[in-house]
Amino acid sequence: MTTLLNVKHLGFSSGTPLVVVDDSVAETLGVRAHDRLLLKFGGREAVAVVNIARNLPADAILVNEEVARLLGVKDGDLVEVSAAPPPRSARYIRDLLRGAWLGSEEMRAIVEDVVRDMLDEVEIAALVAAISQRGLSIEEAYYFARAMVETGERLDLGVEPVVDKHSIGGVPGDKTTLLVVPVVASLGYRIPKTSSRAITSPAGTADRAEVLMPVNLSLEEIKEIVLKVGGCIAWGGALRLAPADDKIIRVEHPLSIDPFLVPSIMAKKAAVSATHVVIDIPVGRGAKVGTVAEAERLARMLIQVGGRLGMKVACAVTHGDQPIGRAAGPALEAREALKALMGEGPPDLVDKAASLVGLLLETLGVEGGKQLALEALRSGRALAKMREIIEAQSGDPRVKPDDIPLGDKRFTVRADRDGVVVWVDNAAVATAARLAGAPKDKGAGVELHAKVGDVVRKGDPLLTVYSEYSSKLQAAEEYLESVATIGVGKPGLESLVKKVLEPAPPGYPLTLER
Amino acid sequence: MTTLLNVKHLGFSSGTPLVVVDDSVAETLGVRAHDRLLLKFGGREAVAVVNIARNLPADAILVNEEVARLLGVKDGDLVEVSAAPPPRSARYIRDLLRGAWLGSEEMRAIVEDVVRDMLDEVEIAALVAAISQRGLSIEEAYYFARAMVETGERLDLGVEPVVDKHSIGGVPGDKTTLLVVPVVASLGYRIPKTSSRAITSPAGTADRAEVLMPVNLSLEEIKEIVLKVGGCIAWGGALRLAPADDKIIRVEHPLSIDPFLVPSIMAKKAAVSATHVVIDIPVGRGAKVGTVAEAERLARMLIQVGGRLGMKVACAVTHGDQPIGRAAGPALEAREALKALMGEGPPDLVDKAASLVGLLLETLGVEGGKQLALEALRSGRALAKMREIIEAQSGDPRVKPDDIPLGDKRFTVRADRDGVVVWVDNAAVATAARLAGAPKDKGAGVELHAKVGDVVRKGDPLLTVYSEYSSKLQAAEEYLESVATIGVGKPGLESLVKKVLEPAPPGYPLTLER
Repeated sequence: MTTLLNVKHLGFSSGTPLVVVDDSVAETLGVRAHDRLLLKFGGREAVAVVNIARNLPADAILVNEEVARLLGVKDGDLVEVSAAPPPRSARYIRDLLRGAWLGSEEMRAIVEDVVRDMLDEVEIAALVAAISQRGLSIEEAYYFARAMVETGERLDLGVEPVVDKHSIGGVPGDKTTLLVVPVVASLGYRIPKTSSRAITSPAGTADRAEVLMPVNLSLEEIKEIVLKVGGCIAWGGALRLAPADDKIIRVEHPLSIDPFLVPSIMAKKAAVSATHVVIDIPVGRGAKVGTVAEAERLARMLIQVGGRLGMKVACAVTHGDQPIGRAAGPALEAREALKALMGEGPPDLVDKAASLVGLLLETLGVEGGKQLALEALRSGRALAKMREIIEAQSGDPRVKPDDIPLGDKRFTVRADRDGVVVWVDNAAVATAARLAGAPKDKGAGVELHAKVGDVVRKGDPLLTVYSEYSSKLQAAEEYLESVATIGVGKPGLESLVKKVLEPAPPGYPLTLER
Repeated sequence: MTTLLNVKHLGFSSGTPLVVVDDSVAETLGVRAHDRLLLKFGGREAVAVVNIARNLPADAILVNEEVARLLGVKDGDLVEVSAAPPPRSARYIRDLLRGAWLGSEEMRAIVEDVVRDMLDEVEIAALVAAISQRGLSIEEAYYFARAMVETGERLDLGVEPVVDKHSIGGVPGDKTTLLVVPVVASLGYRIPKTSSRAITSPAGTADRAEVLMPVNLSLEEIKEIVLKVGGCIAWGGALRLAPADDKIIRVEHPLSIDPFLVPSIMAKKAAVSATHVVIDIPVGRGAKVGTVAEAERLARMLIQVGGRLGMKVACAVTHGDQPIGRAAGPALEAREALKALMGEGPPDLVDKAASLVGLLLETLGVEGGKQLALEALRSGRALAKMREIIEAQSGDPRVKPDDIPLGDKRFTVRADRDGVVVWVDNAAVATAARLAGAPKDKGAGVELHAKVGDVVRKGDPLLTVYSEYSSKLQAAEEYLESVATIGVGKPGLESLVKKVLEPAPPGYPLTLER
């Protein structure tokens, strides 16, 4: 059934081709919500997911700018409209929902159609939820990652080895990358590091690095800089290295799941042609991964999928129970990283960075890498390399920690008794820093004056919140008054029970909140 | 963060509250796609899922008619807009995705928010896909069904027992309900039967019954008619008996899964206050349920969930390998049902209807129900009751089978050799009938001249397609030339292999198509 309909512009662009028709039109065409329509005009075609509305004229089709552009239509143009079958990939998702494991062809079709906007978000949501339930096989993860690489842009440095580093994330204040990149580059390796901005944390690596230098580099710029100085720290968000990922994340985010974690990470490493990769898996109560056993399962999958993609991968299971170093928030962390490169870093941060470099060098067959890293930090060679990188990325290579501005509105939480710090709550630190304005306001964040094991006396400062705005400082302050961020007690005497949920409804198992 | 934005009408209504803002506005408000916005205007409030667009004015918010109605706004009005937290039910769906089983409170919240349009379709799709993967527990199915009943309209006849009948469906030509309802009513029981229209089949019970009488009844009309004549056959689609179901189906349909099958069925039975129910589960290669073992698992779940809702449920596992009777399509089936009530029905249809009545009566403690049913059919009492029902529903009670018009465009498929019919393909019969115009064109459909076991000679008619339009007849004809609908062979000598899929991609298990 083909119908001629009058185009009317919706007047906005929504990322994927979209049309709206009246329900009477949908009935005539034999389509339902989430089905697809094929539109033809002047020899051009577009396929769009159909939204069904009421109270529209029976001869009209509303189109968004994506459709208007594909067809080259203006208001009042008559387009030929008919039902379009779902793409093969939609059938593969239905197969998956009915229990099938997917092969190379299926994964490729799904990733391609995600990139080409041929899959509806209901279909992508079903894919994500089903995979979250049953898990990906290593083979599926490999096929998915490979398809993500093949459908995106690639960085080819023309040299080998190319090393890289990634963190599963989830721990505030983890500025390890700002040390690892210059250390590794100072040792003569090439590390084209692409990083993300914060989504739920006070700062992502791109947010921290941006305090020191522009991070919005093109692939050409990354290549030029890495071949010149050995390393870079760029924002990966606009590089289209694995563009399917961004579209899948749009659906994963509201559902708070990320079942494609392994292929997403490994695809982005393969897309920059990395050959040797170290991956940090922080573990702990307040991290993304709760137990060492879970971390080991994840590590095995990362190593195997990476291996199939041609990379040598080492995974580090690290302590993620409390923030790394003493600072969370872009400017505070950039200061702390710079100090660490100058030999004044907090011991946990320095040890973590050097250990990761050691593991990375082991994948290259080099022993004693941790010592090499510590020497690079001690000797100032890592700092010199960082200044080269900053200069190559058009930042100020002479920047000193104290040059970096911090929010001038401040508030300090103090110990209400004598004792020892027995825990620091990652989520509370992150929330306070974000309420204070991080990562958008670079000068906002949280500085910790005490960490686990530190002895404190009543009245000693535990943490200071920095903000650029009084109203945001106040929001952070009110929040910190409502939660316990840092636990002070006698070690071994803390109750393990923090809080029990409200009375559970019948049939619901009692749960202790972590 | 609260912002004042200028209202602009999208000019259509899309079923649920929906707004569109520019991505710069979304960033200021701190929301992403699928998050929710709270809108306030003149003391009224609305919560809507946000769609994020580009190229919109930074002070504008586009609203659909649902939002406009909730707020009472016109173009240019300034509304106060802020991010709204996701409802509790969205959190429960996330819990489910992370492995939780859901209790009474959680299921109730999900169903309520589905009905109130507080859940985004991405969330509903994730719910449906996750449940499709892991299955519902009996307890979850019960809580879900109970919540569906409690959030919908109910029919209360004020008498007991109230009996009912349901079929899982999937077999073309299954007009059993058109016999069961008058038979049961003629035996003195009350059966307020609500039925659906066809979605993928040539005719639903509502489509068949509508050939004989109006089926678009209100709950008040159903009550009045059932109390007067004992039974009715109404279209259930607009009665809001379990309104959550319709919204869930909107997402299930494009995914071709229905994990909420059991609670959906049982909720609709409980909503009409049924006390004794018989459920038909057709089993076979071409039915929805493939094996008897699968049917038994489904039956146990239906019986237990029904039991918890206060109903006595019996399930019949029936032959679903070929169409029931010889007609598929609204008018053809209405004719066949009427003939069966006149004592001239095909034996499989008559036996199936009588057997289901027997099972239903067993739940009431009545033995020999099948014989009672056969007598009601033989004696004309069932026919008389059907005429009472038709009259009560404002149809023509004197209608005769030959009065019912059939499509006058016809095409007959003939046997190309001597032999015995060894199979009839349900899907091919359904597709041919639908291409011919069914269920929309009442006179369209397929009449089978031969069924499994019938001896045919080369040139004998196997089936006739009826259509109201030459173009549709031609489409059905072309389709039937491309597939084998009825298999004629020597019994026992048919090859079991119908077709093997194209070469499978590596890693994909070889599959035989059914």
